[in-house]
Amino acid sequence: MSASREDKRLVIEALNGVAAEMHDRMMRGEPPRMTLPVRSKSNIAFDERLGVFKYGKKRTIRDATSLGSARQLLRALHVIEFIEQMIDSGKSSTLREMYYISEGWGLGKFGSQNDSNNLAEDLEIVTKCLREDFRLRPEEDGARIIGNITFEELNRRGEWMRINCRDDVGDSGYGVPYNVEDEKLRLIEEDIDFVMAIETGGMFDRLIENGFDEQHRCALIHLKGQPARSTRRIIKRMNEQWNKPVIVFLDGDPWSFRIFASIAFGAIKTAHISEYLATREAVYLGITADDILAYDLPSDDLSSKDIEALNAELTDPRFSDGWWRQQIETMLELGKKAEQQSLAKYGLDFVTDTYLPEKLGQLGLA
Amino acid sequence: MSASREDKRLVIEALNGVAAEMHDRMMRGEPPRMTLPVRSKSNIAFDERLGVFKYGKKRTIRDATSLGSARQLLRALHVIEFIEQMIDSGKSSTLREMYYISEGWGLGKFGSQNDSNNLAEDLEIVTKCLREDFRLRPEEDGARIIGNITFEELNRRGEWMRINCRDDVGDSGYGVPYNVEDEKLRLIEEDIDFVMAIETGGMFDRLIENGFDEQHRCALIHLKGQPARSTRRIIKRMNEQWNKPVIVFLDGDPWSFRIFASIAFGAIKTAHISEYLATREAVYLGITADDILAYDLPSDDLSSKDIEALNAELTDPRFSDGWWRQQIETMLELGKKAEQQSLAKYGLDFVTDTYLPEKLGQLGLA
Repeated sequence: MSASREDKRLVIEALNGVAAEMHDRMMRGEPPRMTLPVRSKSNIAFDERLGVFKYGKKRTIRDATSLGSARQLLRALHVIEFIEQMIDSGKSSTLREMYYISEGWGLGKFGSQNDSNNLAEDLEIVTKCLREDFRLRPEEDGARIIGNITFEELNRRGEWMRINCRDDVGDSGYGVPYNVEDEKLRLIEEDIDFVMAIETGGMFDRLIENGFDEQHRCALIHLKGQPARSTRRIIKRMNEQWNKPVIVFLDGDPWSFRIFASIAFGAIKTAHISEYLATREAVYLGITADDILAYDLPSDDLSSKDIEALNAELTDPRFSDGWWRQQIETMLELGKKAEQQSLAKYGLDFVTDTYLPEKLGQLGLA
Repeated sequence: MSASREDKRLVIEALNGVAAEMHDRMMRGEPPRMTLPVRSKSNIAFDERLGVFKYGKKRTIRDATSLGSARQLLRALHVIEFIEQMIDSGKSSTLREMYYISEGWGLGKFGSQNDSNNLAEDLEIVTKCLREDFRLRPEEDGARIIGNITFEELNRRGEWMRINCRDDVGDSGYGVPYNVEDEKLRLIEEDIDFVMAIETGGMFDRLIENGFDEQHRCALIHLKGQPARSTRRIIKRMNEQWNKPVIVFLDGDPWSFRIFASIAFGAIKTAHISEYLATREAVYLGITADDILAYDLPSDDLSSKDIEALNAELTDPRFSDGWWRQQIETMLELGKKAEQQSLAKYGLDFVTDTYLPEKLGQLGLA
């Protein structure tokens, strides 16, 4: 996978391979097809060798003998052509733009944005390349980082810029680009002890205002809710290349548990590239269900959707670990969830003076 | 208003004035109260002198003779105390944190986040200070800017940093902080002909990749949907201080029309500070209802909510201008809306090679 990123030609070859295979089958009088893993919770399993969750053995075949599947194969061919054009011309495109570009593809036109997103992931699976190799960008912004670490970014004008995420950026921090591979972003220098990933902008700004990154020698990264691929990837790179612990500080609710799972174990939608995105050593600091009681935090009742999500997590193989089962069950028993900013009940400094030092101490990091 | 920002003492005095007035009324045996403008579409009117929409004459009195109003006055006193503490200790807080801090205010505890947001705005109205003076921050991120302009930002470590938004930032651009007044952000140098505000991240990135900012000598600013106060304020500052035209490029739907209104005329919720936030010279470039036909853009049917919003705009005094009425009526007749990225139907370069030059030409800017 990483080899393909080194050389654009390898990406084009891999894409051409998909087209060639369809062509060959047709020449033999057989209907063209694509074979893909079943992409659901029921088909992910822990990969002992990689230490992350990957798709299991269940496969689905997309075969041109049905109209719907034939249309998908036609779209795949159009997408391959579009990606090759972008690689040749040094362009990139949002997934949304690709959706609109398909207006000119006749019967291959996408029915919805979701169709085009899924097809981009399908092509990742069959070519073993990455969407970033295909030059397809998401709409959402990447994360923001503050801390004493230095990157080099190749900017759009073809210059390598050296950026220290403490000294060379304003208070809003360094904005992570959509491609964080070596060809675009290099990890140069650091003077930190750990990386802390934070769910909400309010808490990120709180830790910065309170000087937490300097006092505790860490890099802070604002996840912006469910983290983008580039966010998960840069976290993994800092963990592996710099050998830094990764601490995850989120709200205390079922959706935050899912965010953690996507960071540490791999997300279900991207399980084909978990070894590339997931940081198996990441540690969940809080807000835990226990914290709601231990710190007597202002909390809200779980909604029916929350309860449904927690119950789904009980059958999710990523949460089969004893600690996680206990957290999920405690939250269901309590019937409560709490936000990370609820720590402000005890004043603006409580989180940095008391809560985080106590929790980091429990993890052996204070 | 701007005087108050120069000196923290003036902010504290203004806040103390609110408390003193309540105290004085009580000493005279009268119930304390606050008088506020009615904050709805029916009570905004064009202010000829300022050239923006402001609240009209309708007033509502919050009087301690009812329990609900008495509770609001109590909350106001707690908030005033909290803001004074922040000013004294050099802190700031998110509106969400203030909501949680109210846990300790007994009967003054906020019932919802909305309550605390509204009260912050009420205090702006009665004190003629700004929320930024009160050191209350929103959750949302500010805008991103790319272009050949130079700011100086006072960072959290008390150092003035010089940042050129073309040369000193990565591809994600300069992140605008929540306070963009002279005490925090200074406009230093520019070499541009105009400022273009853009609704979606995808289009912002498209214009950057295509080098539009360099070719057309402009600064690009990504609004991130409904623009934050700091975004509207920095646009206004670039317009006034650098005397640059402001071009607004959004999706073509009723919600984008509202975004434009908030930039150019003032938003209903913040009409008490329109002269501070609204750029009356801002020009709507597109997507217009006419564009959907003229460029045969991929479009979606208007939903019932869209139609409702368009009809509401027909009775909104900010859209009483003939050109806007015609656009709204055309969209209602067409029954269609279109996204700015739908221009990708004609390829990734169509927007920069054809659409924008044509539209800027019509505005006399190409």
